[in-house]
Amino acid sequence: MSSVTIDDINPKVLKCEYAVRGEIVNLAQRLQQDLQENPGSHPFNEILYCNIGNPQSLNQRPITFFREVLALCDHPAILDKSETQGLFSADAIRRATEILDQIPGRATGAYSHSQGIKGLRDTISAGIEARDNFPADPNDIFLTDGASPGVHMMMQLLLSSENNGILCPIPQYPLYSASITLHGGTLVPYYLDEATGWGLEMSELKKQLEDAKSKGINVKALVVINPGNPTGQVLSEDNQRDIVEFCKSEGLVLLADEVYQGNVYVPEKRFHSFKKVARSMGYGETDIPVVSFQSVSKGYHGECGKRGGYMEVTGFRPEIREQIYKLASVNLCANISGQILASLVMCPPKPGDESYDSYNAEKEDVLSSLARRAKTLEDGFNSLEGITCNKAEGAMYLFPQLHLPQKAIEAAEAAKSAPDLFYARRLLDATGVVVVPGSGFRQVPGTWHFRCTILPPEDKIPAVVNRLTEFHKAFMDEFRD
Amino acid sequence: MSSVTIDDINPKVLKCEYAVRGEIVNLAQRLQQDLQENPGSHPFNEILYCNIGNPQSLNQRPITFFREVLALCDHPAILDKSETQGLFSADAIRRATEILDQIPGRATGAYSHSQGIKGLRDTISAGIEARDNFPADPNDIFLTDGASPGVHMMMQLLLSSENNGILCPIPQYPLYSASITLHGGTLVPYYLDEATGWGLEMSELKKQLEDAKSKGINVKALVVINPGNPTGQVLSEDNQRDIVEFCKSEGLVLLADEVYQGNVYVPEKRFHSFKKVARSMGYGETDIPVVSFQSVSKGYHGECGKRGGYMEVTGFRPEIREQIYKLASVNLCANISGQILASLVMCPPKPGDESYDSYNAEKEDVLSSLARRAKTLEDGFNSLEGITCNKAEGAMYLFPQLHLPQKAIEAAEAAKSAPDLFYARRLLDATGVVVVPGSGFRQVPGTWHFRCTILPPEDKIPAVVNRLTEFHKAFMDEFRD
Repeated sequence: MSSVTIDDINPKVLKCEYAVRGEIVNLAQRLQQDLQENPGSHPFNEILYCNIGNPQSLNQRPITFFREVLALCDHPAILDKSETQGLFSADAIRRATEILDQIPGRATGAYSHSQGIKGLRDTISAGIEARDNFPADPNDIFLTDGASPGVHMMMQLLLSSENNGILCPIPQYPLYSASITLHGGTLVPYYLDEATGWGLEMSELKKQLEDAKSKGINVKALVVINPGNPTGQVLSEDNQRDIVEFCKSEGLVLLADEVYQGNVYVPEKRFHSFKKVARSMGYGETDIPVVSFQSVSKGYHGECGKRGGYMEVTGFRPEIREQIYKLASVNLCANISGQILASLVMCPPKPGDESYDSYNAEKEDVLSSLARRAKTLEDGFNSLEGITCNKAEGAMYLFPQLHLPQKAIEAAEAAKSAPDLFYARRLLDATGVVVVPGSGFRQVPGTWHFRCTILPPEDKIPAVVNRLTEFHKAFMDEFRD
Repeated sequence: MSSVTIDDINPKVLKCEYAVRGEIVNLAQRLQQDLQENPGSHPFNEILYCNIGNPQSLNQRPITFFREVLALCDHPAILDKSETQGLFSADAIRRATEILDQIPGRATGAYSHSQGIKGLRDTISAGIEARDNFPADPNDIFLTDGASPGVHMMMQLLLSSENNGILCPIPQYPLYSASITLHGGTLVPYYLDEATGWGLEMSELKKQLEDAKSKGINVKALVVINPGNPTGQVLSEDNQRDIVEFCKSEGLVLLADEVYQGNVYVPEKRFHSFKKVARSMGYGETDIPVVSFQSVSKGYHGECGKRGGYMEVTGFRPEIREQIYKLASVNLCANISGQILASLVMCPPKPGDESYDSYNAEKEDVLSSLARRAKTLEDGFNSLEGITCNKAEGAMYLFPQLHLPQKAIEAAEAAKSAPDLFYARRLLDATGVVVVPGSGFRQVPGTWHFRCTILPPEDKIPAVVNRLTEFHKAFMDEFRD
């Protein structure tokens, strides 16, 4: 057998966990294969992946305009063929031509500048300016293969020992815990308050920072996920101001995960970028380091497979910027299709453009349907005995709490399983619905949750609610104290 | 000013170097801007980037069939439109349809399996089998955004302290030194023998391994780059057998950088994958861990901007494989266009397919032109006083040695610059030609080299040789002892 044993492996890798694609998903993949090979072998005929924010895997269609532009940039040879006029919208042809003109030699197959194609960064910063009403600088944009590599890059930059800490919300998106573990730092948790709709309390932030300091941890940065993942809350602007003030006074880098900025479902809430909030408080470029992460994977477009995204890096000294640039350079550049898509997302068709009406209809279809799905699932969960579920104001998830009977907890212990994992496994076995146990996101000790996306196709939502309800009732009947 | 100072930064990041996009390239970008703003301000009217293997940035056209398939997969809605028949070749339409049928829900905008889309991995492993005449397993394929993330993943897996070493060729591609530095390990150098055309001597490997062991370094793996980067040599099968035997007897993981497998220019040499060599020696899956890295960026296609690639991971215990899978999962998946392109590269059109003749003509055009360009540049370098240059048997680079006069070395010292950096900077200022100083790849101490790609468009090669010649003669006249 191979000479490499588990003792040869980097212990940070061994320690790292990533529940979104963890044990439950592996089990689901085995069940799916089983269903293919032995139809009828389970009490359901399909696996419904509610574990991950992956809209197009659940039949969401891509935005036509975006795909037209991508196809034309992939094969520019057809741009001036007459058939192309019949197949593609006029503004997609125009946009593709503009983008190609911004790429030296129109070479979509060449490595770009390490931060991404300059013309696309110009477009993105113009989109940020239009969103925020404050200036944005194309030299602050680093295009990345989705948001994850940007997060890894910042963790790699800031963390060099377990005495270096990063304040992270709990519950958190497990990319953060995984990345902090891989880079050898310490996750300093601050707990969101479930009772106030996953509120972010300043007193909790201060308490946890002091606590970390007293343990000798040098806290470098604060992660905020807004809209929240897995929690779905949208922060108020007041709350954001407090957070900015806190980072300013404590000298923390503000790492703002803003990948769900396009996913807000309630009329009383709006997305505000942290950079905009900081600027509106009078803090300029030299006052506070803020990094905003954006992705093409989320929003109404949900282009996860394209791996596009960017980080807007502001408020760092030039010598630190140089280090970030070097890290970007080692990986050469983000994929060009993802770069193009990031520019389209930040600068979609405008009223008057040939595609605008169809684009806008596609967009509104998705967003209004997501809002309805979120509400139906939320109501479904809240109607169940022993489940309480906050509102999904934004993002793509619900994070219901399971108030489990003692007997269920004991059964889980007997099965050497955390109670939420036990529940999620039973749920999968009975219904084919894949959710992620709350422990993957961390949670207040002694509480149990799971994350469920709001992404199943709308016509399947009633069936999903029925399956969940039926399972949950049987589960409670089995374990009720 | 921002609270984050250079002392807050991970020292491994500060230490990391990546010369391919280092100082000379930054200078070139400034010169390019200068030329745009003040035409005629320099003795040349364009910057010629010979620093990086980026063929399409130097006017190489993409392979039409590949781009047709990518465009159709990006915008499947046009697949059944009548105009599409006129715009795309019949086999591209067929292939795109096949690929879409392999993707659940035809969703090219969904995250895939963490290792990549299963159907594409089937195609890739069939391509490997056809290449090697030995079995390949789709479950061994991990699709990646270019080869670099695969290399980082393996370094992250294997390295946890500076007592962990990786044997690397010197000169090496600086991704390896950068990645080893970032992951906190030690690069254990073995020197390629310039006098024998960058030969890989077993005695040198053994000597360096023993030397590292005597310093308490636990050497985990051996990196071999074949065809060589920056050195351009193609290993003989005999030599490869010795290397496999060495890894087997020393318990080393063999990390085989085989991204230039499609770039062999001399009739007397052929590419053999290390896995094939190991299998032909009778070593099976459980005998020796071999990781083969492949990329869509190189070969005759040169699709750098698409960031596609894979690693074939063989010979690891299941519990180690699980760790590799976990690392892949944390980054969700490689971009789908890159995944598709990797499958096309490993399974291009076949004789009889509608596109075969044009595909093959495009491919042979590129490869025969690269061979001619390599020869002309090599002859050009060898005709110069004080330069010796080995043959580019493969890959995309020449790595000539500069035998500099003492006066030039002193002038460099006076300018606080390494002599090869001094030369490269003067070359850039005088000609606009961008090369990478040998120190970025490491070299035998006291020797000086630079890496120059063979990628300038063929019609510009005579002018490049003239500019290099003129510059070099003037340089020698200035500094001749």
